[in-house]
Amino acid sequence: MVAAMSEVGNPSSIHAEGRRIRDRVERARNQIAALVGRPREQIVFTSGGTEANWLGVMGLAAAAEARGLPRIVATTKLEHPSLRAPVAALGARGWTIVDVDAMPDEAGLIAVALVNHELGSIVHVDVSRARARARSALVHLDAVQAAGKLDLTALDADSIAISAHKIGGPQGVGALAITVDDGLPVGGADGGHQERGRRAGTENTLGIVGFGAAAASADPSTWSHVAALGEQLERGLLAIEGTRIHGAGRARVGGTINAGFAGALGESIVMALDLEGIAVATGAACTSGSVQPSPVLLGLGLSADEARSAVRFSLGRTTSEVEIGETLRVLPRVVERARRNR
Amino acid sequence: MVAAMSEVGNPSSIHAEGRRIRDRVERARNQIAALVGRPREQIVFTSGGTEANWLGVMGLAAAAEARGLPRIVATTKLEHPSLRAPVAALGARGWTIVDVDAMPDEAGLIAVALVNHELGSIVHVDVSRARARARSALVHLDAVQAAGKLDLTALDADSIAISAHKIGGPQGVGALAITVDDGLPVGGADGGHQERGRRAGTENTLGIVGFGAAAASADPSTWSHVAALGEQLERGLLAIEGTRIHGAGRARVGGTINAGFAGALGESIVMALDLEGIAVATGAACTSGSVQPSPVLLGLGLSADEARSAVRFSLGRTTSEVEIGETLRVLPRVVERARRNR
Repeated sequence: MVAAMSEVGNPSSIHAEGRRIRDRVERARNQIAALVGRPREQIVFTSGGTEANWLGVMGLAAAAEARGLPRIVATTKLEHPSLRAPVAALGARGWTIVDVDAMPDEAGLIAVALVNHELGSIVHVDVSRARARARSALVHLDAVQAAGKLDLTALDADSIAISAHKIGGPQGVGALAITVDDGLPVGGADGGHQERGRRAGTENTLGIVGFGAAAASADPSTWSHVAALGEQLERGLLAIEGTRIHGAGRARVGGTINAGFAGALGESIVMALDLEGIAVATGAACTSGSVQPSPVLLGLGLSADEARSAVRFSLGRTTSEVEIGETLRVLPRVVERARRNR
Repeated sequence: MVAAMSEVGNPSSIHAEGRRIRDRVERARNQIAALVGRPREQIVFTSGGTEANWLGVMGLAAAAEARGLPRIVATTKLEHPSLRAPVAALGARGWTIVDVDAMPDEAGLIAVALVNHELGSIVHVDVSRARARARSALVHLDAVQAAGKLDLTALDADSIAISAHKIGGPQGVGALAITVDDGLPVGGADGGHQERGRRAGTENTLGIVGFGAAAASADPSTWSHVAALGEQLERGLLAIEGTRIHGAGRARVGGTINAGFAGALGESIVMALDLEGIAVATGAACTSGSVQPSPVLLGLGLSADEARSAVRFSLGRTTSEVEIGETLRVLPRVVERARRNR
């Protein structure tokens, strides 16, 4: 990214300066294509996972309509706000929204996250995909939380959304891998020919370069190390009385642990840990500051009080055993104080 | 930007790491607010000028509809594709599109660029704004090409779009300054609370930091130096027989010179100059590779052949007198060869 900063030129320009930047963008496109195991022509760069989810759902919905598929979209109650929003927009346009577990025999679109953003749980895509195949529904997968943790090259979806900053790249850049060409441009702002007419606007060149580098260094095979550290943390959390791991019954990718501390407010724990130099969260960062309990946890069947007691611990490739130990050392005291102050 | 790269944290997170990034974003917001002379609350960061134009036009149109204003949008035939697209989208929604010079007594929205992207010509906003005031139409100004060249702090528009890479910042980040709060979120991808609910998605933190720095160093008072170099270039161009300066009769910001070389293809000149290390363009970079003559030049009344003979010379703050001299030295030969090869 720093090297690219010293170059000037619009990647759409035909002069040497423009072509040099274009080369960088296309190299990054190859790196993203390798990460998701798709031909480079399918990759559309976006301003992040939110836009990629929007474009994927809207693009596939338009294609489903063009193909005369039923205006039924199957999803779950546990999705990220950026996936719930386009699904809700389809609902406002007359689509019927159903739960993927209660899908009718026919549907136009399945829109789910491969890995849940608050629980780290893995959706059984094999099942949903098999259904999709049988009923010709198109499938959009939000793989934002899965990239770098699961192998994405074997996914059989029609569109896949990923985000750079979830794999160590910069914030504000993402990509959509999309197979269909009907129904494109895929929604949102129009007004430029970029990305083969599928996404308008001068490219975020530096962000794309960083995204490509992050994709090239992403290695799901090393995630088991992070997952093992997560298990260590989880065992320590369960040693604190009144702790419950949310989504524990589900297959999980590891490294994301959502714990409820009965009788405490998650937010108090977040703030107390922050003073100790430990950064955790209550729910999705995208809903931080909200006093509403997490819709994901409510969707799991938790009460509002239970949901408000939740804290999400997210580990990454740089998380160390020392940090896990330090977190477990201060946490019992922090939780106890949070319970007293409730 | 480089300093911000070493920090990790989501600006929406409430822990120290998140707050540190939030501080950087808000510092940049102040810098953008100063550039356009608006309160910081009005500034919405976007993925670039294209998205800012889209959100501005769509946001004001929604506000106009909510206020019961006539569904009439006034624009010109010379607009950038990123402004033409949302205006066309309004047309598809039943709005009537009229030319700003032939505005009826009432309109809901005026959407024009302050400085034209191919001609460098300045729209007489005073006139259009006076009309707007009188008839309560809302006004969106595309100031992408004006930033850094004209003082933007006195514009009386309801929304103003700007782009970082036009003032020396990174590509892929822009901003909208918007006064109205009804009709927001302003369109495009929904799905997150960011930017006070007006633009969803984790912020392009690095891009925003660079944008802020560029805005802080932008100084329209020094543009006269660039404009003077442009006049020097223009005099030299006119010394080549069969040259015509497009938009010469209009007030121009200087530094953008659109020249037609009768009997030559602009594209041949672009490619020949590229071999000499001189980067120029035929039209908007956003339509590069297109074989269509520039809609802007056709809008000026030029024939397709005349429009195809056009080359746009864009000067910047780093353009030197030596570069102008070198361009004028090689150009007569290049134009002559382009005419022979036609």
